Amino acid sequence: MAVVTNFEPKRRKSTPLDDLTALVAEDLSAVNQIILDRMQSSVEMIPQLAGYLIAAGGKRLRPVLTLAAANLCGYQGEHHRLLAAVVEFIHSATLLHDDVVDESDLRRGMASANAVFGNKASVLVGDFLFSRAFEMMVEVQSLDVLRILSGASAIIAEGEVLQLRTTNDTETSEQAYLEVIKGKTAELFAAACRVGAVVANRPQAEEMALYDYGMNLGIAFQLVDDVLDYSALQAKLGKTVGDDFREGKITLPVVLAFRRGNDEERAFWRRVMEELDQKDGDLEHAQALMARHNALKDTVERARHYGSIARDSLGLFADGPIKQALLEVIDFVIDRDF
Amino acid sequence: MAVVTNFEPKRRKSTPLDDLTALVAEDLSAVNQIILDRMQSSVEMIPQLAGYLIAAGGKRLRPVLTLAAANLCGYQGEHHRLLAAVVEFIHSATLLHDDVVDESDLRRGMASANAVFGNKASVLVGDFLFSRAFEMMVEVQSLDVLRILSGASAIIAEGEVLQLRTTNDTETSEQAYLEVIKGKTAELFAAACRVGAVVANRPQAEEMALYDYGMNLGIAFQLVDDVLDYSALQAKLGKTVGDDFREGKITLPVVLAFRRGNDEERAFWRRVMEELDQKDGDLEHAQALMARHNALKDTVERARHYGSIARDSLGLFADGPIKQALLEVIDFVIDRDF
Repeated sequence: MAVVTNFEPKRRKSTPLDDLTALVAEDLSAVNQIILDRMQSSVEMIPQLAGYLIAAGGKRLRPVLTLAAANLCGYQGEHHRLLAAVVEFIHSATLLHDDVVDESDLRRGMASANAVFGNKASVLVGDFLFSRAFEMMVEVQSLDVLRILSGASAIIAEGEVLQLRTTNDTETSEQAYLEVIKGKTAELFAAACRVGAVVANRPQAEEMALYDYGMNLGIAFQLVDDVLDYSALQAKLGKTVGDDFREGKITLPVVLAFRRGNDEERAFWRRVMEELDQKDGDLEHAQALMARHNALKDTVERARHYGSIARDSLGLFADGPIKQALLEVIDFVIDRDF
Repeated sequence: MAVVTNFEPKRRKSTPLDDLTALVAEDLSAVNQIILDRMQSSVEMIPQLAGYLIAAGGKRLRPVLTLAAANLCGYQGEHHRLLAAVVEFIHSATLLHDDVVDESDLRRGMASANAVFGNKASVLVGDFLFSRAFEMMVEVQSLDVLRILSGASAIIAEGEVLQLRTTNDTETSEQAYLEVIKGKTAELFAAACRVGAVVANRPQAEEMALYDYGMNLGIAFQLVDDVLDYSALQAKLGKTVGDDFREGKITLPVVLAFRRGNDEERAFWRRVMEELDQKDGDLEHAQALMARHNALKDTVERARHYGSIARDSLGLFADGPIKQALLEVIDFVIDRDF
């Protein structure tokens, strides 16, 4: 395990994610170098655009999961670093394509890559990062890893396409919504964790335990993301407030509010989400309806359920600082306000 | 080799490509079945859109090359069929993204997939096909094949991004244009041929001979495609006439006409290709300038040069019907009028 020397005075509120990240700090620093090296290309727009997105940062949550999973499995090699970078490249490629598909102007509070470089470049640089991710995977020389990550990529794309179908459909069921977020978000969390066990040559049971941890953590993460899009604290998130609402994207808070609402309320949801006929005050009205029906609160409760499954999935592993941090990340993901 | 029994009376003009295809007919029929099977998904828009594009057909030139290359190398297994389907999936994914990037409404004379299903679905189903292609590759269990095809995919994406930079730049050099088409077109031809030797476990020299054949055939193919976009026979191609012109896409005919033109002509090219300020009669004027400077004729001559290299690259292989057909395809690609 990396020895973490921290000469700076500890910030007042270090989060569990900070703690987990600190435990893999040496590995993560190597991963950041790999990311920088591998996004190079003689076609200069590629490192420019990729650098804009990837350097913009974000929490590096997915690569940290890969590093932590490998560490939890006692892995001593270096392949987990390359795989962590692969996972971040796949994630970055899907972000680029998502922003094009969603016509987003902002990402993490900054102008999105498509807003700066154009949709065309975002589509193609996404393709490049995705292809480069596969090139890097091949270097690990594990057909299991390749099978898992190529399969995950296909499932992610299926989830994204499925989301196109549910967008604007207020009658989307909770089950259909779950299928979408399993694909578009949770599958990569799951694969990120699972490959940590695979490179460490651990038994199938540990591999699947980490898969389950990632899958359920990812579901909880996305549920809370969807709540935050309607929460008063959204401005802190650095995303434009009410993004999902304006796009008519059906998330669990809407599914619950719609199903629990009366005819008049359903007519409102149909007008704003299906016809996208939105006026001043509609977002606030939507938030009021969600409050009336406990839609946000119950979505967080659902997230807690998946969090519990994630927690139990780690039961097989011996206690230790990494396991402890992984467990604390679950609660953090659910209770974060950003 | 497959025995081809053809009970139908031979069509009056069977092309060399028809002849090559007939030599691998049994394999190709299996490839078509694999394509149909592997584009299935529980997300129904995926087979709908993929089926629209892939069933629409085209010549299946790239998978035929994989099959023919494997056959030329005496391969007896079945992996070449899966790889031929992989190559077609990668090709299809890039077509879907290209049409979004180029804002094309037509593809092979039919409404393009993005025109029918929308840009969002085209981006995401492209991602699905690409991921599925990698899943299929993994089944072949050859790290060499994975390395070659993932590397080719990254190079294709680089070529596409590079093209964004040259689009609308009338001062693009012939060399820069060549780099674009090597990436966006020829690299997949090259990889398609090369993997035929790799699955057959042939020596490096044969592998690279087939790579060179595909690379140079691909360059010649794209050069002639670019000529046809300005040729009178373009309507036959089933593409809208003058596509490249209207988009301000710089191809070799434009590079040559611009460099050989006088100041007034260069001002014309800048107006129509850089400012995209186009009036009735401008396409015809562009064609007249190309005729004046032999730009189309000399682009075909360049294609013939690459065709010659492709021809010589097959020198290592013993004569036989497949080799003969591959050689005849070179001339056909150059002299086709569709």
